[in-house]
Amino acid sequence: MSGEDGRASILRHAARIGHLELGPGAEFDLIRELFSQLADGARGAGGDCAVLEVPADAKLLLSVDTSVENVHFRRSWIAPREIGYRATAAALSDLAAAGATPIAILLAVSAPPAWLGDLPAVAAGVGAAARDAGTVVVGGDTTAGRDLTLTLAVAGASEHPLSRAGARPGDHVYVSGRLGGPAAAVRAWTGGAEPDAATRERFAHPVPRLREGRWLAAHGATSAIDVSDGLVADLRHLAAASAVSLSIDLDRVPRWPGTTVIEAASGGEEYELAVTAGKHFDVAAFEREFGVPLAHVGEVVAGGAGVEARASGVRVAPIPGYNHFSASPPLAPEGRDIEPR
Amino acid sequence: MSGEDGRASILRHAARIGHLELGPGAEFDLIRELFSQLADGARGAGGDCAVLEVPADAKLLLSVDTSVENVHFRRSWIAPREIGYRATAAALSDLAAAGATPIAILLAVSAPPAWLGDLPAVAAGVGAAARDAGTVVVGGDTTAGRDLTLTLAVAGASEHPLSRAGARPGDHVYVSGRLGGPAAAVRAWTGGAEPDAATRERFAHPVPRLREGRWLAAHGATSAIDVSDGLVADLRHLAAASAVSLSIDLDRVPRWPGTTVIEAASGGEEYELAVTAGKHFDVAAFEREFGVPLAHVGEVVAGGAGVEARASGVRVAPIPGYNHFSASPPLAPEGRDIEPR
Repeated sequence: MSGEDGRASILRHAARIGHLELGPGAEFDLIRELFSQLADGARGAGGDCAVLEVPADAKLLLSVDTSVENVHFRRSWIAPREIGYRATAAALSDLAAAGATPIAILLAVSAPPAWLGDLPAVAAGVGAAARDAGTVVVGGDTTAGRDLTLTLAVAGASEHPLSRAGARPGDHVYVSGRLGGPAAAVRAWTGGAEPDAATRERFAHPVPRLREGRWLAAHGATSAIDVSDGLVADLRHLAAASAVSLSIDLDRVPRWPGTTVIEAASGGEEYELAVTAGKHFDVAAFEREFGVPLAHVGEVVAGGAGVEARASGVRVAPIPGYNHFSASPPLAPEGRDIEPR
Repeated sequence: MSGEDGRASILRHAARIGHLELGPGAEFDLIRELFSQLADGARGAGGDCAVLEVPADAKLLLSVDTSVENVHFRRSWIAPREIGYRATAAALSDLAAAGATPIAILLAVSAPPAWLGDLPAVAAGVGAAARDAGTVVVGGDTTAGRDLTLTLAVAGASEHPLSRAGARPGDHVYVSGRLGGPAAAVRAWTGGAEPDAATRERFAHPVPRLREGRWLAAHGATSAIDVSDGLVADLRHLAAASAVSLSIDLDRVPRWPGTTVIEAASGGEEYELAVTAGKHFDVAAFEREFGVPLAHVGEVVAGGAGVEARASGVRVAPIPGYNHFSASPPLAPEGRDIEPR
């Protein structure tokens, strides 16, 4: 039983204290194997610390993001390499929202024995996401654990980072891409079906909007957040940080084919960007540059610190984001329910 | 059953997509509660990224370290606050080995529902360790998981960081403190006893040797590593990184009262420093400065890349460090067994 592994390790540790035993250092072999999968991505990995230079005049940005088996993904849904890619893209998305350039990634892995054979592929996915983002894995840690757990710590640099806190009354609210794809993929899998290839790809290979974030920071965006918990939930964070209210028209949120307004408004793990910008912001220039829609979905209003969302002209009650700790059934809705359409 | 929590979360997530539900954002409330426990330690926590300044001319050092329930500790052994303190001290120890000054900590927590009530105390321990090290927690992430898992990402700064790679033939090998205490504590607990207070403290409140590491970097140390896997196992990393051999006399390793030579040589999670330095290094000055022993335990020898350890004049076969992934019984020893004494 996998639940015994950790306890067994402690017992072996204790048993080992009084005598000698031989071993090739399997954990260290594993670390070497993992980091060899990261190819040119692993610079200095294995030392106590990674040593880096932060560009002169730049601020350092740090973020950490964890992906847990059976919480963020299921093993039956996506391949080990995709699990590593996805976890890394999720962490890099925080740097994208700041308009930062990634400079390093650290990978902490907890894994049970049943995962050991697949860990090199997981690491290869981490390395691929790092390379796609123009950065490298510089260090990490491996431990035992009952479920595969990947924590990615990412470091970036920016002279003028965007934050959640700069939205001003009168700004417009925009969101990149088309939302609802990852939610539709989860809906298919949990319903016993396989999502179509494009929808599956939205879940398996999210793209951190790093170039887009830097462009937005340089072209007048006043605040930004990445859509990881769900558009409305994340906009609530932005509203709170900026001490403003946001009036959002959910009908204007571009939707992934076959998804509902509510899937697009509440689905997490999109890794698109929600941003605010003044009235002279050039949306068309963004869309020309990246070939990605940047939809005007609402307005920043003075006062309060919340989100008022409407769909079909009807005010929608608070839309929860993804809550990992929710252990009880959903509360009865106080507001009007909106049915899928 | 706690194993269902993660899967249930995914199912609820999927079920939620098609309709609205209300919620106060319990996960975000939890994050706020956790970071409020960090008191003045939480600067900017909750944003997508922490934004930091790295001192001019300094290099940035990054490291990540994970502590898992039933792998690194048991809930019955130490208090939640101690679990947080210990995990944070372990991560900071990597900065100590580099002679770096900590500038920020990020905390990623995975926890099952049974831990939620204790998470504020865990966070308070993280905050206390950060304060004791003169730094702050600047961000983090919370997710569900079956076992409490804490990943600490630490950032530090140093103009001239120490590494594992600088040992030169002719250098002496030193180790700080007295080894064997954490192993003795684990031995007591796994034998059904409670360790004495001082031994328990070595396990529950490890002290990252940050000031000592900076002093060593400034006073002629040529390489360093912190003792996290076991003295001999960690010295093997140092020998490999420096492409030298180390000749170690285990009888000269200061031992915690009541511990054996082998406990002192193989016990992990000490967070003492093992360093190399040239013949003119001033050990007495270190001991005066810190009131901590710095024992001369061996020599750096040209060639090879391993550790030759002797006890009572007898060569000791390779001493394994702690291997989280060891799932089989210990291999039969090829070398001579050394009995506890």
